Amino acid sequence: MNHIHLEEVDPLEIEKRSFEIISEELGDRIFKEEQELVIKRCIHTSADFDYADNLCFSKDAVKIGIHGILSGAHIVTDTNMAKAGINKKVLESFGGQLHCFMADEDIARSAKKQGCTRAAASMEKAATMKEDLIIAVGNAPTALVRLYELIKEERIKPKLIIGVPVGFVNVVASKELIMSTEIPYIVAKGRKGGSNIAACICNALLYMIRDQKLDLS
Amino acid sequence: MNHIHLEEVDPLEIEKRSFEIISEELGDRIFKEEQELVIKRCIHTSADFDYADNLCFSKDAVKIGIHGILSGAHIVTDTNMAKAGINKKVLESFGGQLHCFMADEDIARSAKKQGCTRAAASMEKAATMKEDLIIAVGNAPTALVRLYELIKEERIKPKLIIGVPVGFVNVVASKELIMSTEIPYIVAKGRKGGSNIAACICNALLYMIRDQKLDLS
Repeated sequence: MNHIHLEEVDPLEIEKRSFEIISEELGDRIFKEEQELVIKRCIHTSADFDYADNLCFSKDAVKIGIHGILSGAHIVTDTNMAKAGINKKVLESFGGQLHCFMADEDIARSAKKQGCTRAAASMEKAATMKEDLIIAVGNAPTALVRLYELIKEERIKPKLIIGVPVGFVNVVASKELIMSTEIPYIVAKGRKGGSNIAACICNALLYMIRDQKLDLS
Repeated sequence: MNHIHLEEVDPLEIEKRSFEIISEELGDRIFKEEQELVIKRCIHTSADFDYADNLCFSKDAVKIGIHGILSGAHIVTDTNMAKAGINKKVLESFGGQLHCFMADEDIARSAKKQGCTRAAASMEKAATMKEDLIIAVGNAPTALVRLYELIKEERIKPKLIIGVPVGFVNVVASKELIMSTEIPYIVAKGRKGGSNIAACICNALLYMIRDQKLDLS
């Protein structure tokens, strides 16, 4: 081809090889078994080793999320990008459904009326749902802040919050608010996160179930 | 609420305030005007200042991309996540369309037959299109490698390549291959990138047009 060297890897082996490289570069760092696959998948998705340090898990968060999915919890996310990235097929095989209300007309109306973001309004819609919920926020800190208020008002009680909005305005504080509640959480402390990370953490849970990677007893 | 401090920012002002913070933290670094908005939007999307250093632009790449969109170029991307994140409405207002072939049945068949990835097969499908193309690769280095081969075989000649796959196997090399061609490119050198970054660079171009941020003469 030319002087640029390509490694020969079978298409089906690329992900496996990537995880080997990530493990090598993490060296002798030790993670809790249930957290390790989430952390490595976030690094795989971003090529950013900061996720080895910034991911925070409340007690048994991964197991609680997995049990939620196994008993049919729905996932609500704050971006259509995250929705596009989450493995719907695996989620639906356990009875759950995937939702993003951001493009809904009633959300646009509600946000305009209240002078809030559509992401905040979409959390209010989530609070009207009867199903068990996993809330995955990858973009809007305003969604996490509204979610915090709804929790305090006892209007919503998610099984798990995946709190990984990205950015510069109230992102750090919104994550701290969520970590101050009693609700199980997986949060990327600091400014980093994103729709890709939100989708990736949901998929890490789904794939642990699919691939039976964790002793759930 | 509690001791955690939230900054009071009007929902409509959050993006503006974010860009102000990014500009402050970049300090006195100077970028080319046309590249600056792309770089800052990538930092805005990822909270990762590495993009101030790793984004590489061939000569006039941003202007070429913008002129492509203005004259109706289509965008082909390698993930449905990127497709979900790109502002279709603005693109379509200039006559372009947005494509991702990854979930198409003919792509699955072609990949299986050839023993290649679906991303590589989807580049072959792009090569059969008659329209002007911007190719935005956010995930699969195999897509960039196949794209390089198709360029060398003179089977495709995109107006612009946005080459920002993420990961550990052949990602760095695949980007170097693209930068060795004559095709205009915007590439995130190194391992970083992602569907979010691919979408973000497309949107940066689209919003520069919508907001008339650049002198295009």
